[in-house]
Order: sequence, then C-alpha cells, then structure tokens
Amino acid sequence: MKDRKLLMIPGPIEFTPEVLRAMGMVTTSHVAPNFIEAFGQALERLRQVFLCPSGQPFVIAGSGTLAMDIAAANLVEPGDKALVVNTGYFGDRFAAILERYGATVTQVRAPAVGDAPALEEVETALKDPSTLRLRSGQGYKLMTITHVDTSTAVGADVKGLAALGREYGALVVVDGVCAVAGEEMRQEEWGIDLALTASQKAIGVPPGLALVVAGPRAMETFRNRKTPVGNYYADWTQWLPIMEGYEARQHRYFGTPPVNLIWALNVSLGQILDEGMDARFARHRRLSQALKAAVTALGMKQVPVSPDKTATTLTAPYFPDGVDRAMLAHVKEAGVIVAGGLHPAIKARYFRVGHMGAVSMSDILATVGAIEKGLAQVGYKFEPGVGLAAAQAILTR
Amino acid sequence: MKDRKLLMIPGPIEFTPEVLRAMGMVTTSHVAPNFIEAFGQALERLRQVFLCPSGQPFVIAGSGTLAMDIAAANLVEPGDKALVVNTGYFGDRFAAILERYGATVTQVRAPAVGDAPALEEVETALKDPSTLRLRSGQGYKLMTITHVDTSTAVGADVKGLAALGREYGALVVVDGVCAVAGEEMRQEEWGIDLALTASQKAIGVPPGLALVVAGPRAMETFRNRKTPVGNYYADWTQWLPIMEGYEARQHRYFGTPPVNLIWALNVSLGQILDEGMDARFARHRRLSQALKAAVTALGMKQVPVSPDKTATTLTAPYFPDGVDRAMLAHVKEAGVIVAGGLHPAIKARYFRVGHMGAVSMSDILATVGAIEKGLAQVGYKFEPGVGLAAAQAILTR
Repeated sequence: MKDRKLLMIPGPIEFTPEVLRAMGMVTTSHVAPNFIEAFGQALERLRQVFLCPSGQPFVIAGSGTLAMDIAAANLVEPGDKALVVNTGYFGDRFAAILERYGATVTQVRAPAVGDAPALEEVETALKDPSTLRLRSGQGYKLMTITHVDTSTAVGADVKGLAALGREYGALVVVDGVCAVAGEEMRQEEWGIDLALTASQKAIGVPPGLALVVAGPRAMETFRNRKTPVGNYYADWTQWLPIMEGYEARQHRYFGTPPVNLIWALNVSLGQILDEGMDARFARHRRLSQALKAAVTALGMKQVPVSPDKTATTLTAPYFPDGVDRAMLAHVKEAGVIVAGGLHPAIKARYFRVGHMGAVSMSDILATVGAIEKGLAQVGYKFEPGVGLAAAQAILTR
Repeated sequence: MKDRKLLMIPGPIEFTPEVLRAMGMVTTSHVAPNFIEAFGQALERLRQVFLCPSGQPFVIAGSGTLAMDIAAANLVEPGDKALVVNTGYFGDRFAAILERYGATVTQVRAPAVGDAPALEEVETALKDPSTLRLRSGQGYKLMTITHVDTSTAVGADVKGLAALGREYGALVVVDGVCAVAGEEMRQEEWGIDLALTASQKAIGVPPGLALVVAGPRAMETFRNRKTPVGNYYADWTQWLPIMEGYEARQHRYFGTPPVNLIWALNVSLGQILDEGMDARFARHRRLSQALKAAVTALGMKQVPVSPDKTATTLTAPYFPDGVDRAMLAHVKEAGVIVAGGLHPAIKARYFRVGHMGAVSMSDILATVGAIEKGLAQVGYKFEPGVGLAAAQAILTR
C-alpha cells in the first residue's frame, strides 16, 4: 500500500517528477554555462506565462510575501496614496506592507467574509475628490488586487478592476500568489503593471522563490523615484542588472541565486508552456467546476458568496451542520490532505482544497471520494457517490 | 569518463548525496508533522552549530544578503552609529545595508587589499570621543565583522574583535557567510551577539536560505526598538513567533517555508554535528593548510598579506608572473572548477578556491593536481608534483 497522501492544499502543491528531479540535481556554480542558460530561459518563459511580452521579470530567493514586499518597496515612496481592494487576509497584509514603506493606505473592503467589493465601490474610492487633491493633481499612485485570496477562495474580477485602476491613473498591482498559471490572467492585455506570485502554487515549484513581472509603467515609476528603496534586499537597483544579465546569457553577481530552485522553475515553466496558457486556464476551470459541483451536491455551502466571486484554483467549503474539522482527519486517512480554515473570523467552520498546477481529473475524483468518506465517518447523512457523480458529470462533458 | 567536475568555489559547494536527496523529496505541506519535526530539529541544531545555546535561530528563504539585511533592519534605528570592520567587498555591502536603515556608518578599512585592520585601529575607532558624544553617553550601537571576506580570502580575528566590541558596548554582528561551520566560531563564548550565514557555504545546503542566530542582547535590542523595522520581509516581529512555534513542534503561519531546503538543512546540520564542531574545525584547518602549502610551493603568492589574516575556508592565490585567468580554463578541463577574482581592485590578477563543508583530502589533491596541470599548460615553469608533495606532507602528518 502506498503511504503517500495526495496533497490538495493551496500550496505547496503536488510537483511533477521532472521538477523534483531538478531540485535534487547536483548543484553547479551560479556562473556555470548550464545554469546561466537555465536562468535566462526561465526569465523568458516567465514573461510568456504572465502573458506580458513587455514585462521585466524578477526571480529572487524568498517567499510570496517577499514578492509583495518587492512590489511595495520599489513602487511606493513616503507620502504616496495606495488603494487596497481587500478580499481577505492577504489584502490586510498588502496594506501593512504598503504602510511600512510610507504609503497612506485606503482599503475598499468586502461587505462580508467571502465577498469582494463591487466595481462601483472601487470606482467611488478611486474618484474620491479628497484623493485627487492629495498630491498636486494626482490620485492613488497604485492599487492592489488579491487575485485569489488564499484564506477564503474569493476570486477578484482582476480584468474589471485593472481597467478601473488604469482609468484613474493608478498603477495596477496584482497579488497572484494563488493564481498565476492557474487563474486566467493576461497581464499586458488587461493593463496590469505588476503581477507577482510564489513558486509553490500554480507555477509548480517547491517553495522558496518570489516571482515578479513588472510592466513598463512600473519600471518607469521605479526609475523616477526620488528616495531610495526602503528595503535593501528587495531593491531593484541591485536586481535589475542581474536579471538583464542572465537573460542576455551573461553572469552578473549580486547574491548567489538559488540554483536548484531556478532549475526546477525552468523545468516547470517549460511544462506550463508546453500545455499552453489557454489550455491550462481551461483545464483549471473544468477541474474547479467539477469539485465545486461535488461540494454542492454533498450539501455544503462555500465561503465565496457567489460563483462569480470564486477562485478556480481553490475551493473553500463550509462544513455541513453538525460536522467540524475532526472530519479532516478522516479525509486524510482516506488518502487526501486538504487544508483547514485560515481566515480568523470563520477559521473553524470551513476547509480549503487547492487544485492547481499539475492537478488531474483523477486527483479531483480522489479528493471528492475522500471527502465523501470523511463525511460518512463523522455520521453526516448523504447519498454515497452523489458528489462523485456530480464531479464526473462535468469531467466527462 | 565522468563529465562531472569537482566544484571548488566559495559556494555553492559540493553537497552530500543525502542533502541532495532531501532536496528532491516529494514536498509535503508546511504543516505536515514530518516537516514540523524537521524544521524544529533544524532550529535546535543551528544553535549547536553556531555554538550559541542562548541564541534565537532564524531560518528564512533568501540569500546571504538577506541575512545581512535581517541583522541590520532589526537592530538598527535611524540615527544609530555603526562601525564596520572592512576587509573587502562584503564590508562595503554591510555599510550600504546599515545606511539604508538610517545608521551613520564609520568604516575601519584595511590598509591594503588582502589586509585586515589591526585591533588597535578598531579600538581607536571604538573609543573615539566624537562617538561617545553622539547619543547621550552611547557609542557605537553595533559593529560588524566579516569573518571571511569571500572576495579576498581575508579572515578576521573575530574573537579579538568581538571582545573589543563588547568592551565598548557595541553589539557584535558577525557576517559568517563564508565561515560558519567551517571557520572556528564560538558565538556565545566569544560574545557575538548575532552571527549569520547562507546555506550554500560550509553549512552544506543548496543556495536559498538565510540563516541567523541572535543572542539575548540582540533580541533585547530588537524588543526595545522605538521605530518599526524598516524592512517588512525581514522583520522579526513576524518571524519570531514562527521560529518559536516550529521549535515547540507547533505550526504557525507567516509565509510558506521553503520545505525542501529546510529538509536539506536539517540533514546537513545532522551530518555536521555527527562530525562534531571541534573535529570539523580541525579538518577545515588541515585541508586549508595543505592547499595553501601547495600554492606556496608552486610559487604563487596569496591575496591575504599574512597567514594570521587568512581564511581557512578559502584560498586566494595570485596568478604567477606571466600567467593570467586563461589558466582557469585548463584547470577546469583537468576536472576542477575554481572561481575567478571578485574584488574590483585586483579582479584579473587572482583566483579563488573554496574548501569547506564536505570537502575531503582527495578533493584537495585533485584541486592541486588540476592547478598544476593548468599552470603547465600555459607554459609556467615549475617542478611537476611539487604542489602535490607539499599538500601531501601536511595531509599525512
């Protein structure tokens, strides 16, 4: 019997054997020709995965929070105004980071946990006359959007919000940590000035890399800074020549790059592009619909208040009446690891299933099967197989 | 024929098969019991490797520069005075980082490249009356020492400098990036308040982890801060509960930890402690002496001006007269990769050999053999085998 469990959490996800092989390869020097080639290629591929031909990619050792920090530290100067479209835990975090670098932050909050602010509310905030007066004719310098709030599975209307941000002259920053390479995001076409993620989500690489693609307006804002970047390690002044160097297949030194993680990144980005971004978005949508249909068929509500405010990379079901997180141990026993709640206000009342990256149809069915088993074992009444049937109806469509 | 070359650069070094196996293991959740145990154990072991029973370890995804940034950002507040004992490239970097967080930096520079400031000069700087007046009765808040300057192979007298720093009330911060777990350093006994390194040096783990151990005075200085830490990602306010949590074998969330790198770290720290710190320091000393004796026997001078100012983890020979870096290609052809020069003032005139971590007697002999071959192929005149004989005389002693 396999003692391996299927890992269905919102990151780290399940990685492909090729990616894990790259992780365990004998490390070479960071100036070795095969590493320079892999790093250069990974940077080129990142631009393609983010669908941002004009973007400047940055690959830096760190967590997803470092990627948020990189965005804030390089774009914000003390006294700038920033607007945070808040859909949960990670909106709060972005506000805290922006404030650290001297921004005055306004948050447009969702009316309830599981909801997202309406476009109209965000527009009202963007055109607030008090904003426009703050810095001689300027409104918000930037706005941030959490594409998928990992704590709630709320998915934001990034396309609509980005268009609004552009209209009102704000740099549009997308926290795509639980989204990039899974959720549809077309950075350049949608007018997103900076998008960021971490390696261990839909990008499909073990945790340890912060990934950022900055568009021309973001880079121009950085170049026009009047004050030094508040965070030394995050400062593009250091990193830009490194990224440009490796992409030109030349070695330049600032810090030692995380060789094995970058090899793994290049392998995974190659696999992502082999599938193709459109096919990949479609697969993620279909698998997500299947799992969500199963959850509904099993009588569970979800944290996001409506389908149009729901992520495709992640599902967050409330436990049914009379069931609590003790159920998750039975799901695990049945072979699948899902994640507990994270949002403080509802933490004990829901769980989270991640389905991104190399996730397959059979992973979804295995997950639904394990959830059914878990529910049965805590005495919840339902028709066995009803979840599987609902998922299968979509998967075989 | 093996196409694998022996990697003898000052990091990334050669890693053990067990460490590489941990790198390629199937990633689990960061809340999985086996990961919590490995992280907790790695933190305990880090304290032992740094020889600092009272220290607080931090393991964070990033490069060695992040570790320097963590030290500066958490300990410095705007207006503080800092003293940098500068022995090369990385002293300059520490000064830049300290200034970024508002410190006024005084540097005691070596009289020449390859030299280190004398203890007396550092003491003169520490007791400079202008210093003592700066903040009501306080002198330098901290001093930094680069244990081994990776650019020059200069080794600092950390024990002597730390005692001085203590005497004059400065927090003693040691950049041990090319040193910890190779050079002798006894953090607690020598009165070092914070020591830091990166994973890819003598710690023996692929690049991607910043490692810091902070003693009680450093933690107290952090707790007594009057201003927020300037760098969000580096802020101990976030990381301290995480490190305390994992060490208590509990999961707490801030950012997703780099699971595979931390597994590899725990494996490598276990191997280091199995050898024992004293035995490890002695092995590094013996191998270093052997390589340096070979270099001398081959008629090459070294960048460090005298043996007492020389690292044990690293050797930096000048090319002999009439030889230039073209020789390094022949060394590589002969199977060994060494590093070129890094210090801007002498970059083209020398090379660097790293010998730390799992490095063995046979690695040293292979390296000397390849250097001899390289020298012969560029037409340098010497008695073949003279380097090998000099090394062997020490290795068999």
